[in-house]
Amino acid sequence: MTNTTAFAELMAFQRQTEALSMVAERLGWDQETMMPRGAADQRGEEMAAMESVLHARRTDPRIADWLAAAKFPDAAGAAQLRLIRRSYDRSTKVPADLAEALARLTSVAQGIWAEARARDDVSAFLPTLSEVLALKREEAAALATGGDLYDALIDDYEPGATAESLGAMFDRMRRRLVALREAVLAKPAPAPLVGHFSTDSQLRMSRDLATAFGYDWSRGRIDLAVHPFSSGGGSDSRITTRVVETDPFNCFYSTIHEVGHSSYELAIDPDYAMTPIGHGCSMGVHESQSRIYENQIGRSSAFTAWMFAQMRDRFGAFDMPNAEAFYAAVNRVQPGFIRAEADEVHYNLHIMMRFDLERALIRGDLAVKDLEAAWNDRFKADFGVAVDRPAHGMLQDVHWSCGLFGYFPTYTLGNVYAGCLNQALRKAVPSLDDQLAQGDTSAATGWLRETLQRHGGLREPRDTIAHACGFDPHEGPLLDYLEAKFAGLYGL
Amino acid sequence: MTNTTAFAELMAFQRQTEALSMVAERLGWDQETMMPRGAADQRGEEMAAMESVLHARRTDPRIADWLAAAKFPDAAGAAQLRLIRRSYDRSTKVPADLAEALARLTSVAQGIWAEARARDDVSAFLPTLSEVLALKREEAAALATGGDLYDALIDDYEPGATAESLGAMFDRMRRRLVALREAVLAKPAPAPLVGHFSTDSQLRMSRDLATAFGYDWSRGRIDLAVHPFSSGGGSDSRITTRVVETDPFNCFYSTIHEVGHSSYELAIDPDYAMTPIGHGCSMGVHESQSRIYENQIGRSSAFTAWMFAQMRDRFGAFDMPNAEAFYAAVNRVQPGFIRAEADEVHYNLHIMMRFDLERALIRGDLAVKDLEAAWNDRFKADFGVAVDRPAHGMLQDVHWSCGLFGYFPTYTLGNVYAGCLNQALRKAVPSLDDQLAQGDTSAATGWLRETLQRHGGLREPRDTIAHACGFDPHEGPLLDYLEAKFAGLYGL
Repeated sequence: MTNTTAFAELMAFQRQTEALSMVAERLGWDQETMMPRGAADQRGEEMAAMESVLHARRTDPRIADWLAAAKFPDAAGAAQLRLIRRSYDRSTKVPADLAEALARLTSVAQGIWAEARARDDVSAFLPTLSEVLALKREEAAALATGGDLYDALIDDYEPGATAESLGAMFDRMRRRLVALREAVLAKPAPAPLVGHFSTDSQLRMSRDLATAFGYDWSRGRIDLAVHPFSSGGGSDSRITTRVVETDPFNCFYSTIHEVGHSSYELAIDPDYAMTPIGHGCSMGVHESQSRIYENQIGRSSAFTAWMFAQMRDRFGAFDMPNAEAFYAAVNRVQPGFIRAEADEVHYNLHIMMRFDLERALIRGDLAVKDLEAAWNDRFKADFGVAVDRPAHGMLQDVHWSCGLFGYFPTYTLGNVYAGCLNQALRKAVPSLDDQLAQGDTSAATGWLRETLQRHGGLREPRDTIAHACGFDPHEGPLLDYLEAKFAGLYGL
Repeated sequence: MTNTTAFAELMAFQRQTEALSMVAERLGWDQETMMPRGAADQRGEEMAAMESVLHARRTDPRIADWLAAAKFPDAAGAAQLRLIRRSYDRSTKVPADLAEALARLTSVAQGIWAEARARDDVSAFLPTLSEVLALKREEAAALATGGDLYDALIDDYEPGATAESLGAMFDRMRRRLVALREAVLAKPAPAPLVGHFSTDSQLRMSRDLATAFGYDWSRGRIDLAVHPFSSGGGSDSRITTRVVETDPFNCFYSTIHEVGHSSYELAIDPDYAMTPIGHGCSMGVHESQSRIYENQIGRSSAFTAWMFAQMRDRFGAFDMPNAEAFYAAVNRVQPGFIRAEADEVHYNLHIMMRFDLERALIRGDLAVKDLEAAWNDRFKADFGVAVDRPAHGMLQDVHWSCGLFGYFPTYTLGNVYAGCLNQALRKAVPSLDDQLAQGDTSAATGWLRETLQRHGGLREPRDTIAHACGFDPHEGPLLDYLEAKFAGLYGL
């Protein structure tokens, strides 16, 4: 086997694996959007069969031989081998019976969590959470081979990030964010948007917003789902949204957020299609795209002025005097228990809290039985109010029941990256606001596409951001942006 | 390996194969209903990857060992082993490179056929058709191992049927059908339905028709597609329909037809789910269900009277004096070139012609270059008019470009089976028309479910029909039904 043959054979094998993994993802999309409700059990078997095929391919011993013999022809080839090696190492390090036990447990655990949350019953969830945690710690031990357990889990979502560096950054951020929220909340709150906005009109507007953000309808589509998500890649990346008739911002900003994710996948160099680097390079970088679309662009004063005019045209008169008041309503800062509904000022405080708690859980510094008290204490300290019920506290997120320990920090990392990208974008396109005020995001999305999105997984996450921005990512630009924006809005 | 272990292992392996094959079918559904148009190439790779996984499983050498060792615990177990052996023999008899060449060629051939049809250009299609035919003859030779080539192909769709028995039956039918069509066409034609029927109203009514035929919405759904089809099984069987605003019967009867197919799959004993006998037992038996729903029930005088009242309620006044005239319009006999649009009197004549032509092609008795002339001569003889253009003649059907030689006769076999089932059903439920006149099909669909549908692939096709009817299937009941129905309609 020559170097070149090995590389070609490996890539051909991998290409088929990528195709099968796209199929599994499309099946997941179908489940959330189209599948008749009576098909759930059967779909479970179908997904398990796909997972079993994929697992066998990911641990196929020929991969080791190919990797040993393959020589990369160029930078892209080197990146392919790096990602294939990472996936192979990970898949072979975790014993098959552990992987299976985790898959089985977490699929049951989600149902138990959902029921516990509905009944506000922490004790109904704790035994299951303990089991999930025990298996995840076992998995982390298999992956870490002596190193930090939590780092081993983070690595699944954000290669290269460590608990130590994230923790240090979050501590720096937390002080400024707590100060900002206190300053903002001392001021009078702007009026919220009030009214009834029909489902059909919201969906029409959300389609037009997707178009305004450059969503490629020939390779995507939008449907309704309980939780908005984006799904797929290559030349088929679909999004979902949801509608609350009293709160059109829910629909509009969910849509813009998912368009950010989906546009990233669709913008990747077609030469990378069906290969390991033909995907977004990490959860954090992915989130940076959804966040900059949603927040730095979508919630800007310029863009919301255009949205205000659009809404006036579509929904007739609603109680909002002018574009400035509309901008304030969109960006209204409000204390709340729920992460997923948090504004830009509060959002990262939610994440930091989860990061510290799950880090302590994985390291064994916090027992599951003490989690609720730890959550509630920390919430009081950072948010100034006491959690009123578990569904508003430690039972609010699905993540831990799915075993997604190490995932939360990538949300804030995404915001930090978005802050950096926004700074670089504003420098590269000084007239950006003039275009956004016309509903034209093409200069912004075009810059993101060229500097970041099209490269997919070619570089490691931090290098991807650094390459796009021209500087190493750090939390400064995000904090500066937030302080300036909310100083303006609240007259600080 | 004990007998019991071998059976259990084989069934567990097969269950995963069934799940993966459901996934592939769901992907096909997505392609025709939901997929963004720009995703076609990627979907091709996804389907090919699934096919490759499925082919490897169908030819897995462990199957031979399991089959040698397994002992069936009961009649259902015996049927499972029979079907697994048939699939294994078929998959291993056809050389992998031939199967691959056929898959590649037929996927290209469909495009070439579609273009040739659009341009009425027979010569653009003939070279490709010759290639497909050559490969199909090669495949048939591999399958037939000395026997009749065409029989080997029929066996894929209707196990147990032979060209000789079908040919003899078709010859008997043809004489009576040609006589019937001549008698009918000598009479004045009833007035057709004329008007404009909105897409939304048609879709609403087609949903209600599906409900009236007992379609289980908790395990199915209906969407629009270019060609109506049903897809899936077990607890997820979906249908599609289409709308022509000047011809609501197109939508309504396509829907009822597909509900027949889908209801068959959904009615199969849940104990058989995800096993070889958990599917309809042949193309002919499947078609018998769609046809009896559509024709013997859906186009009956009693049911159309209910439909007429429904349409009056929904579409307001349209030009049709009464239920009798509506019944005549639904069943209007009209000479035409296109099989897919043919009425009950003409339909089987189209099939018989294709059967004779493809049988001659496969046996080498007819050359591809002479096919057009043979088609046109035969059409003139059976239908009394000359084909005006190739798109109305030998280029009208997609089947041959897909390599589906041996498939056509199952359409008429389905009609013949439906005729038998209708005779037995009418005997079992003498008051059926009273219920159909109220839009209540439950006695009819319930009888079909109990006597036929729930058994899935437990018995061979003819035994399945015989078990339900209490007599061996033959063409008599269908011809008697057609002659009586159209004698009444046309005053013969």
